[in-house]
Amino acid sequence: MENISDMVHASRLALIRETMKKKKIDGFLVTDITNIRYLTGFSGSSGFLFITGKEHFFTTDFRYKDQSKQEVKGWDIVIERGDRIDIIQNLCKKTGTKNLGFESSVTYIFYRQLSQKGLQVTAADHFIERLRTIKNDAEINTIRKAVKRAEEAFLDVKPFIREGARERAIALRLEERLRKKGCRNVPFEIIVASGSHAALPHAWPTEKKLQKGDLVIIDWGGEADGYCSDMTRTLLIRGQNISKQKELYQIVLGANRKAISSVIPDIASKQIDMAARTFIKNAGYSEMFGHGTGHGVGLQVHELPRISWNKSAPVRENMVFTIEPGIYVPGLGGVRIEDMVVVRKKGGEVLTSLRKELEIS
Amino acid sequence: MENISDMVHASRLALIRETMKKKKIDGFLVTDITNIRYLTGFSGSSGFLFITGKEHFFTTDFRYKDQSKQEVKGWDIVIERGDRIDIIQNLCKKTGTKNLGFESSVTYIFYRQLSQKGLQVTAADHFIERLRTIKNDAEINTIRKAVKRAEEAFLDVKPFIREGARERAIALRLEERLRKKGCRNVPFEIIVASGSHAALPHAWPTEKKLQKGDLVIIDWGGEADGYCSDMTRTLLIRGQNISKQKELYQIVLGANRKAISSVIPDIASKQIDMAARTFIKNAGYSEMFGHGTGHGVGLQVHELPRISWNKSAPVRENMVFTIEPGIYVPGLGGVRIEDMVVVRKKGGEVLTSLRKELEIS
Repeated sequence: MENISDMVHASRLALIRETMKKKKIDGFLVTDITNIRYLTGFSGSSGFLFITGKEHFFTTDFRYKDQSKQEVKGWDIVIERGDRIDIIQNLCKKTGTKNLGFESSVTYIFYRQLSQKGLQVTAADHFIERLRTIKNDAEINTIRKAVKRAEEAFLDVKPFIREGARERAIALRLEERLRKKGCRNVPFEIIVASGSHAALPHAWPTEKKLQKGDLVIIDWGGEADGYCSDMTRTLLIRGQNISKQKELYQIVLGANRKAISSVIPDIASKQIDMAARTFIKNAGYSEMFGHGTGHGVGLQVHELPRISWNKSAPVRENMVFTIEPGIYVPGLGGVRIEDMVVVRKKGGEVLTSLRKELEIS
Repeated sequence: MENISDMVHASRLALIRETMKKKKIDGFLVTDITNIRYLTGFSGSSGFLFITGKEHFFTTDFRYKDQSKQEVKGWDIVIERGDRIDIIQNLCKKTGTKNLGFESSVTYIFYRQLSQKGLQVTAADHFIERLRTIKNDAEINTIRKAVKRAEEAFLDVKPFIREGARERAIALRLEERLRKKGCRNVPFEIIVASGSHAALPHAWPTEKKLQKGDLVIIDWGGEADGYCSDMTRTLLIRGQNISKQKELYQIVLGANRKAISSVIPDIASKQIDMAARTFIKNAGYSEMFGHGTGHGVGLQVHELPRISWNKSAPVRENMVFTIEPGIYVPGLGGVRIEDMVVVRKKGGEVLTSLRKELEIS
C-alpha cells in the first residue's frame, strides 16, 4: 500500500468480497462510474470493474490508458477495444466465474445482452451506494472543502443580489466564482429564482430582474476532489408589504432548525422529515412543501440516503445529507433553506456555515 | 396547434403511434429525459410520458408543476406524488393498457419493478433515439446557433492560448465566454491538453503551462435552446524542432478532409470512418488513432449515429454528426481536428466555420 487512499480502496474492496461470499456470487461487475471512482480513485468517465475472490480488473478504453495507470493502483488494468459484453464474457471464462453479480443500475439493454450470453447473473441493489452513505474522515474533510468553496463564492456574489440584478447574471457570476475557487465542475445547474418565479422550485435562471419585495431563492453547490456540496439561501429584496414574505421565511427557518435538531444516529429518515413537515403543517402550509426534506451528498450531489416521509431506513453515524425544507406559494414566491449536516454521536453537525437569519437587501 | 413547434411535437407523436401499432403495444412509456424533451418541449429534469393510441399523459412531480404547464402543450399533465411504478400501473388500468412498451435505456431495477406488476412489457431499443438522428430545419438552425456561440467564444479566448498560459485558465476563460454568449450549460467538460498531456485524449485541464513546441488540443462545445455543438482545434506553440508536430497535424487534417468528403446520403458509417482511418494508416500511425471518427450531436452532445469502424448502418440526409480523427503519440502529444457536418443530398455540409489550417502561436 502506497498511501492512505490505497488503503481505503483496499478495505472497500474487501467489503465487496465479503458480500460476494454471502450472496454466493463468484464475480462482481461494477459499472456505475461513481462507484468505480469510489473503489479505485479513477476520475474518468468510462470503464468497469470485474472482481472475483482473488482477482480484480479495471477495464477502460484507449482514451484513459495513461490516466488509469496514474490513478488506479493495485488493479489489473485492461484496455478494452470492441464489444463490452464480449470482454466481460472473456473475463468470466478466464477467471472461471459462474455466477456474476451486476449492479441493478445498469440499463435494461445491458442486462439483456449479459443474460443472453448464457451466464448466471444476479442483481445487486444499491450495494456500493449504501457503503458510500457512511463517510470516513477524509471524505468529510473533502466535503468541507466543497462547502467552503461554495460559501466563499456566494459571499463574493452576495453584494450583487439586489433590486435590478437579473437572475441569470447572478447565476453566471456565482458559477464563475465557484470555478475560480477551484471547483472542477459545478455539480448542478445553479438556481436563482425570484418573486413568483421562486414558486417553481427548479426553475432556470431567467432574464427577470429582481424586484422590490421579491424572495430570491439561490440553490448552488461546489466541488472538491470529486465530492460535492449543496446549499440554498433565500434573500428578500427590500420593499413594501413584505410581511407575508417574512412570515414564510420564519416558518421555513423554524422547520430547518427543527429537522436539524432531530438528527441523531439510528433515527428513521422519515422522523427527520416529519420534524420539518409538522412544523410547516402547524403553520398552515402543509400543501406547499411538496418535496422531501433532504438527500445524501458525496461523490454525487444527490445520493443515498433519502430523507423523506416514506423512507423508514435509519440514518447512521457519519452519513452526510441535506436538510432543505421549503414553502412555495404560487403567485407570491418561495423560500427554501438548505444546510448540509453530518450525523455525529451526539447529533447533527452542520457543515454549512453561512448565516441563515432573514436578510433584507 | 398553436405554433410550429406544437406541430412538430404532434407529428413526432404520430410517428410513435404508428410504431406502436406495428409492434402491437397499446401503451408506450417514455422515460429518457432527452426523448421527453424531444416529444414535448419539456426542459426540466424529471418526468415520464405515457402514450396510448388515443391518449397521452405527461407526468412529473410537484417541482415542475408550473413549468410543465408553460412548456408542455397538448398533453394531459399529471403531477405525481408517491411511487412511480404505482402511478404507471394506475395509468395502465385507467387506459386499459395490456401490453406496455418501455425504453430499453431504463435501469434494470426499474424494468424488474415494472415486470413484477403483472404487466406484459416489451422493450423498445433506441426507437426515439433513431428518430432524433434526422434533424429538421429548425433543429439544424438551432445547432448552427450552438456552433456559432462556441466559435465566438473560442475566438475571444484564442489570443490567450500561448506559451506560459495554463491549461485550466484557458478552459475557465472559454467556459466563461460560452456562458456570456448565451449557453445555458456547457455540454461537456472542456478539454485543454498540451504537450505530452495531449496524448491523453480525455485529460482534465491541469495547472500545466503551455510550453514551446507544445501541441494544444482544445475540445469544447456550446448550447442553444437545448441543442449542442462539439468541436476541437489543435494549435501549435512556436518552438524549435517542431517538424514532427507539423507532420502529425497535416496527417490529421488530411484525414479530417477525407472523411468529410466521403459523406453522402446512404453511405455506411464505417465507410466514413474508413476514409479517415486509411489516411492515417497510410501515413504510418494506424495504432495511434484509437477512437471512432465521429458521433451524432443534437439534444445530447453524444447521440446516434456512431461513425465507427464497426458500425455498418448507413447515414441519412439531415443527420448531424462530428468528424474528429486524431493521432496521439505518447510522450510527444496529440492532434485532433473535429468539425460538425450535416448530411445533404450532394454531400456533407460543414457546420463548423473555424479555420483548420495549422496555426503556430
